[in-house]
Amino acid sequence: MPPFDIPEGDPFGPHNLPYGVFSAPGPDSARRVGVRLGDHVLDVGAAAYALGSPYAPLLARPSLNPLLAAGRTTWSDVRRALTAWVTVPSHRETIERHFHPLSSVTLHLPFEVADYVDFYASENHARNVGRIFRPDAADSLTPNWKHLPIGYHGRSGTVVVSGTDVVRPSGQRKAPADPEPVFGPSVRLDIEAEVGFVVGGPSERGKPVGLADFRDHVFGLCLLNDWSARDIQAWEYVPLGPFLGKSFATSVSAWITPLDALEEARVAPPERTHDLLPYLDDSQDEPGGYDLRISVAINGHVVSEPPFSTMYWTAAQQLAHMTVNGASLRTGDLYGSGTVSGPTERERGSLLELTWNGRDPLELPDGKRTFLEDGDVVTMSAWAPGPGGVRVGLGEVTGRVSG
Amino acid sequence: MPPFDIPEGDPFGPHNLPYGVFSAPGPDSARRVGVRLGDHVLDVGAAAYALGSPYAPLLARPSLNPLLAAGRTTWSDVRRALTAWVTVPSHRETIERHFHPLSSVTLHLPFEVADYVDFYASENHARNVGRIFRPDAADSLTPNWKHLPIGYHGRSGTVVVSGTDVVRPSGQRKAPADPEPVFGPSVRLDIEAEVGFVVGGPSERGKPVGLADFRDHVFGLCLLNDWSARDIQAWEYVPLGPFLGKSFATSVSAWITPLDALEEARVAPPERTHDLLPYLDDSQDEPGGYDLRISVAINGHVVSEPPFSTMYWTAAQQLAHMTVNGASLRTGDLYGSGTVSGPTERERGSLLELTWNGRDPLELPDGKRTFLEDGDVVTMSAWAPGPGGVRVGLGEVTGRVSG
Repeated sequence: MPPFDIPEGDPFGPHNLPYGVFSAPGPDSARRVGVRLGDHVLDVGAAAYALGSPYAPLLARPSLNPLLAAGRTTWSDVRRALTAWVTVPSHRETIERHFHPLSSVTLHLPFEVADYVDFYASENHARNVGRIFRPDAADSLTPNWKHLPIGYHGRSGTVVVSGTDVVRPSGQRKAPADPEPVFGPSVRLDIEAEVGFVVGGPSERGKPVGLADFRDHVFGLCLLNDWSARDIQAWEYVPLGPFLGKSFATSVSAWITPLDALEEARVAPPERTHDLLPYLDDSQDEPGGYDLRISVAINGHVVSEPPFSTMYWTAAQQLAHMTVNGASLRTGDLYGSGTVSGPTERERGSLLELTWNGRDPLELPDGKRTFLEDGDVVTMSAWAPGPGGVRVGLGEVTGRVSG
Repeated sequence: MPPFDIPEGDPFGPHNLPYGVFSAPGPDSARRVGVRLGDHVLDVGAAAYALGSPYAPLLARPSLNPLLAAGRTTWSDVRRALTAWVTVPSHRETIERHFHPLSSVTLHLPFEVADYVDFYASENHARNVGRIFRPDAADSLTPNWKHLPIGYHGRSGTVVVSGTDVVRPSGQRKAPADPEPVFGPSVRLDIEAEVGFVVGGPSERGKPVGLADFRDHVFGLCLLNDWSARDIQAWEYVPLGPFLGKSFATSVSAWITPLDALEEARVAPPERTHDLLPYLDDSQDEPGGYDLRISVAINGHVVSEPPFSTMYWTAAQQLAHMTVNGASLRTGDLYGSGTVSGPTERERGSLLELTWNGRDPLELPDGKRTFLEDGDVVTMSAWAPGPGGVRVGLGEVTGRVSG
């Protein structure tokens, strides 16, 4: 009987248990926290009440924020409880009525986004961008790149859940040869394949969060598409950085994978080529990278497989850097890894790189692509190595471009 | 009897009525919405209930957000009601018990900040910065400056209310001659005198807000100090803009002045030297500037008087630009004007400009200053022309640097 008859090796088996927020069809359409198991969603608040669990008040909520705010010990305790609910046969009869087929529910943005920060942590991506835009520079990286994880704040109010249409943005653009800027819909709409990290436990203003405290603050991760209008961005971004070229939409997967589900995916980041200042020096720490195998498809056709394990800066380093000036964290803060690009052509995480700024169009079954066309559906999915060789699936992030 | 015996011409008279959030000493220390009258605060929720006002449920709240969300018609209706309460003698007996001396209350951040954006809209400031950092450039402005209001997102989680101490941030810095970056407390801690605009009414994703709809979305304004660590900023900001050099703290005044109180302060912005794209063209509109006379003091000594009327880009243009790509607005969005600098030396809104990057120290009664020292208290205040020549006072924004 579903959902307990999950095939051996299902990437959304009981070893995974990502969190989301859903609403079910029918008279009670309230939003509630759900955990994915196979192709079903467990209403964990209802299940918790049915089982008399002390976590019921934390889980029977319309958003993940209360759970996020509860802190690491509670995250682990709740995960242990959930694992027991879905694996111990005696709970089966009590909770099975609280499962909903995934295909029947609506998935919502799983948490209220506080601040959103985006990083730039893939050396391959940064070098590709440097080669494209500064072909004559002696070094394709800016001088600061190997010393700190470069980041900037984005718009948290336009973070949308997977499945939300993305309206092609209009704005100013000016090619170098144009005498004046022109206004209109972006003609260079792009994607950026990223991983988003979700902050649970807050921190105090004036108190940096060190590398060792990463797991006390970051609850889990999601896939993230940092939609980018390259023409708008190119004209606006000097000297204060990206603004309207990015702020129209950022899509995140509906499922947040807890870091506790990704223990087997931890890997060492690439070898560091520069000495790091002490607050960023992770050379004596446990592995800070994650081996996430991302796949990017346009209209169902896979165009790239960016490997997250190649990221130069880790999420722990990004958190340490983001707070080293005393900036505080809030529950619901989200930060993106930056575009994930591997060393080979088929591992690049943006069309800018995949088509080398439009010079080498991609050949798709439905025609050539330099940048996105109206109606294109972009879908990113990923998996990570899990216990006993079983994969841990990440929720996909998908979005359709509307004109 | 106070607070009704307000001296003629008091800048916080009944023509002003700025909003804030306060808590009173004593057993009921809950946060509540207050309106300033002279040197008193009216608990407007309690007054509304005492008078049987229909606005009581909107005003008896711990934050301004419900009022902000209510929209422009309600803002005007509530303001008319408040004006009657504090000017019609028959209300006097009912409401006078709901006044608190300003000196007895604690003022709080008056609204929950959603997204925070900072602009760069003073031509004098942008040219000064260009001259200081790019002395050999043909034009002190970047090519895009006269075509669009340059902006970027900042950290909303570290927006703090006036009176909050600001901890000197630590971070990486690297002077051009340094072989490697060094880490430590910023040695070039600066201020930026700005005006902040507070968004009330939200907008839909994908629907730009035109120039003409500015007043439907922006409720009021405040003073804002965009604290800036110049050394951290200089090393980090290429290519993605300011991050840790700004994100440690942004201070706002405790009082939000409704735009309805500033009708007499409206002025035309400076003459435009370039044709503007239609979505930014305000040449046929009512005056979009505001004549706000700002004063910046360090330890009580006035060092600058930046005139807001000199800002090239108006708040309406900034809003139109911020949303032209389809980015949505949320109740509580805050955007800063950018540093306000007038054409003369005594009108510059940052120490970077006032000391010309440290070359010309300021002479204060307690010694020379290039950048801020621990213990320095920075206070910005302002006023605007009001009805009949009476000034409209803006709430001050003050903060002390702690080491």
